[in-house]
Amino acid sequence: MAPKEMTVGEAAAALGLDAVGDLNVVIRGVATPAAAREDQLALAMDPKYLPGLREGAARAAVTPPDTDPVEYSLQAAIYAPRARFAMAGVTALFAKDRRKPAGAHPSAIIEEGAEVDPTASVGPYAIISAGARVGANVQLAAHCFVGEGAEIGRDCLFHPGVRVGHDVKIGQRCIVHSNAVIGADGFSFVTPEPGSVESAREKGVVVEGAENRVWVRIASLGAVVVGDDVEIGAGSTIDRGTVADTRIGDGVKIDNMVQIGHNVVVGENSLLCGQSGLAGSTEVGARVVLGGQSGVGDHSKLGDDVVVMGASGVSGVIASRSVIGGTPAIPREEIAKQLLSLRRLPRALEELAKLKNRFSRNEPSG
Amino acid sequence: MAPKEMTVGEAAAALGLDAVGDLNVVIRGVATPAAAREDQLALAMDPKYLPGLREGAARAAVTPPDTDPVEYSLQAAIYAPRARFAMAGVTALFAKDRRKPAGAHPSAIIEEGAEVDPTASVGPYAIISAGARVGANVQLAAHCFVGEGAEIGRDCLFHPGVRVGHDVKIGQRCIVHSNAVIGADGFSFVTPEPGSVESAREKGVVVEGAENRVWVRIASLGAVVVGDDVEIGAGSTIDRGTVADTRIGDGVKIDNMVQIGHNVVVGENSLLCGQSGLAGSTEVGARVVLGGQSGVGDHSKLGDDVVVMGASGVSGVIASRSVIGGTPAIPREEIAKQLLSLRRLPRALEELAKLKNRFSRNEPSG
Amino acid sequence: MAPKEMTVGEAAAALGLDAVGDLNVVIRGVATPAAAREDQLALAMDPKYLPGLREGAARAAVTPPDTDPVEYSLQAAIYAPRARFAMAGVTALFAKDRRKPAGAHPSAIIEEGAEVDPTASVGPYAIISAGARVGANVQLAAHCFVGEGAEIGRDCLFHPGVRVGHDVKIGQRCIVHSNAVIGADGFSFVTPEPGSVESAREKGVVVEGAENRVWVRIASLGAVVVGDDVEIGAGSTIDRGTVADTRIGDGVKIDNMVQIGHNVVVGENSLLCGQSGLAGSTEVGARVVLGGQSGVGDHSKLGDDVVVMGASGVSGVIASRSVIGGTPAIPREEIAKQLLSLRRLPRALEELAKLKNRFSRNEPSG
Repeated sequence: MAPKEMTVGEAAAALGLDAVGDLNVVIRGVATPAAAREDQLALAMDPKYLPGLREGAARAAVTPPDTDPVEYSLQAAIYAPRARFAMAGVTALFAKDRRKPAGAHPSAIIEEGAEVDPTASVGPYAIISAGARVGANVQLAAHCFVGEGAEIGRDCLFHPGVRVGHDVKIGQRCIVHSNAVIGADGFSFVTPEPGSVESAREKGVVVEGAENRVWVRIASLGAVVVGDDVEIGAGSTIDRGTVADTRIGDGVKIDNMVQIGHNVVVGENSLLCGQSGLAGSTEVGARVVLGGQSGVGDHSKLGDDVVVMGASGVSGVIASRSVIGGTPAIPREEIAKQLLSLRRLPRALEELAKLKNRFSRNEPSG
Repeated sequence: MAPKEMTVGEAAAALGLDAVGDLNVVIRGVATPAAAREDQLALAMDPKYLPGLREGAARAAVTPPDTDPVEYSLQAAIYAPRARFAMAGVTALFAKDRRKPAGAHPSAIIEEGAEVDPTASVGPYAIISAGARVGANVQLAAHCFVGEGAEIGRDCLFHPGVRVGHDVKIGQRCIVHSNAVIGADGFSFVTPEPGSVESAREKGVVVEGAENRVWVRIASLGAVVVGDDVEIGAGSTIDRGTVADTRIGDGVKIDNMVQIGHNVVVGENSLLCGQSGLAGSTEVGARVVLGGQSGVGDHSKLGDDVVVMGASGVSGVIASRSVIGGTPAIPREEIAKQLLSLRRLPRALEELAKLKNRFSRNEPSG
Repeated sequence: MAPKEMTVGEAAAALGLDAVGDLNVVIRGVATPAAAREDQLALAMDPKYLPGLREGAARAAVTPPDTDPVEYSLQAAIYAPRARFAMAGVTALFAKDRRKPAGAHPSAIIEEGAEVDPTASVGPYAIISAGARVGANVQLAAHCFVGEGAEIGRDCLFHPGVRVGHDVKIGQRCIVHSNAVIGADGFSFVTPEPGSVESAREKGVVVEGAENRVWVRIASLGAVVVGDDVEIGAGSTIDRGTVADTRIGDGVKIDNMVQIGHNVVVGENSLLCGQSGLAGSTEVGARVVLGGQSGVGDHSKLGDDVVVMGASGVSGVIASRSVIGGTPAIPREEIAKQLLSLRRLPRALEELAKLKNRFSRNEPSG
């Protein structure tokens, strides 16, 4: 398939950005400044990438506003006042359309009683179970499994190997990456008598008789409900609820290998970075950001607009707009203070010992 | 399929719990108190959920003992002295039977020399390799792969996309969730001469010549042996042993995305929460609980009934019944003390500085 | 299949090691000392395993140099000066050849325009998309998916359920374990105006108007390029680059459940242990070792031969040969000092308080 082709002027118009120079220069893709070929639009929105333009062959680039194209041997420049945001527009403009034609591959299994919209594409060896519904324009790739009674809203894109459990509901325009699992059973076990964790919490120790000699399973009667415009990363797992459903709000973005436990509720537009985890029954507000490898303990409650720094361990109730980090997570400015103090600590201990000595020497005896 | 239907009296009898009020009230499912419909049993075992009963339409509920049904507009109540344990019984009572009929789907591949019990169900596009054995009543879902010579005991339930390596042995009544991988090769490499990690451990630095210029692979000749009544979460991975087998004891419960390295031995009834990890050659005793995102370094040894708090990094030898947390993990009461001290530290450093100043002023000069 | 059979002398010759005693003793496999049968080579390279030889029935063992076979009831011993390195040789020697015959299983789908070398083996229900290329002697197991235009170099081994995205390039002799995902989209979103994370970074708080009300997606136009002799663990995920490719150097070894973000570059022979993660746009030098569950923040830069201890959180620029740990990661000797100080801190605070008291008492009033 031929790459997309457009003029600098057309690209600028599509991006809603200003352009200077020869707007008729033709571009057939994008590249980093130093690697760009003559017909590629070099991406140099960040000033630190401008010098790279001289190494590459690009005739046109996206640059910070007011950059002089001539200074970087360009014939044209598109001005991007917000670099990262321009990146979204530019990459969308040049992304290849990889949609497969409508219809099910002959090897796909669509069980009796499943409803698949005729505009949907179902890949080879995919399985859609009885009672499941797949909406218009859905792209369901190879090896996907959709359980009984599950629903996938229109315009969703599922990459190969996604597993959707029975009765899971997924909204519109969601993107789910390979090998994600939506709707496994919750991890929920109980001992007939209070067990070691309960003992440790209440008494600080594992008392005699509090050993976990028997685990009884709590079944998951709830499902998972995923809103619209949600993205779920490769290998991520979202467990079903115990009685009510686990709920992922509209616009939530979930990176790779994120674990979301049973009964969790995630508010709209929250962003969960790679390898983060939400333990069972946790509630997360809207627009919360979880940094990579951060975790939230069970039954915690985070307000709106909370920012959790990477590698943090959060638990309890966290107020809206908090910026927190560390384990256990505390406000960012507290961490900074503690880290600084900690760095000074070895020396401070020496000073303390000295002071004690000097004081003892000076102190009147008796 | 119609939901299960039973009277309050029948449910109480099945649960072994006392009930009061009209035991003939019919229930057709369970729900949270506020969301319950007229024919649903509301789950209000925790006193904090009782007020919710007034918002819902339930005529019957599971409540703490001695709750007056009339006070919450109920016609009947089942008394649960231990809330979470009652949850296990109630959810089991109303869980839908999702077993597929015996027999292999026409698209399943059962290689020559594999033995599949006629009462087992093998889903579409599942593969059972030569020499593998699948026991009675096993439910093996779509897209599962069972390697050569592997054994799966009776009454196991495998969700879609599980991968079982050659010669892996899995006991009876195990549940394995989607995309788990049991029996990948161990991660085991060695440099011909001592490498950077060895140098760092012994000398604190990476000395000249200790760079890892060549990695030589150690093959995994062992398998994985999983006991009875084990549950393994979605996306979890258990590697095979180098010479002996990696061993998971009876009754062990493993959450999603848990990583278990080669040669690891996990004692019976241990509970490994989400995203926790056990590095190679670690031994874990019976009834150990690993909190979410906790990790145990290679060649460590944990006794029985150890409780590891979430997000902790454990290494070395840990005595039975220890309750530990932090990185490196230390006893729970030590952490509490350290955290408190740390919080006081910035101020203490100021005080120390002041004291030093005052002391210097007061100290006889010369 | 019969196990491999060889004499002690043949084994020693193959391993390039010295042997003593009766070199004609026949061995048909390896085992741990205590569990070894008469015809198995016991692995007792570490002195601590020598006593176990008396419990087992082995007639031959691999031992530390100068071990007297007779002392451990052996007829022969192979001397291993470097225990772990000998393990690589021995396990390779006895590893069973599990290669499948060349050719595609009848159920494999090889799309029009894909090129599969006739010596490659393609397993049941595997899918090779249009334009993909699979090299000589490749072993591609069941349920694997290879996207459009992807390339897999000769002699690679792919276990069941691996997903390879379009245009991903994988070198020669790579081993990829079950359910790994190579080439999912990067996790890259931007708000039209500066959002909560930017606000938190710059101002320490989430200011009004900096809420993430809209996420705009940055598409991934780049691919993933994996070098030669790379191993990728079960369930690991490597995302494609935004404009340039994500790059994994020759000889890199990646454990299970490792997450590698978009645009990341990993230098040759680096070793990434289980559940570690590299956030987007991070650059890692050659021969770097990441301990288990460690993470590196986005846009970080690690030099060559860096050793990151397990469970650490790294960010920023890290000099070559650094040995670091903790979160945020600092040099190993600093951590040791801080941990020691921290342990002393509770007592030091008491001493400080006492000193303050005594000083106040002694200080001249007024």
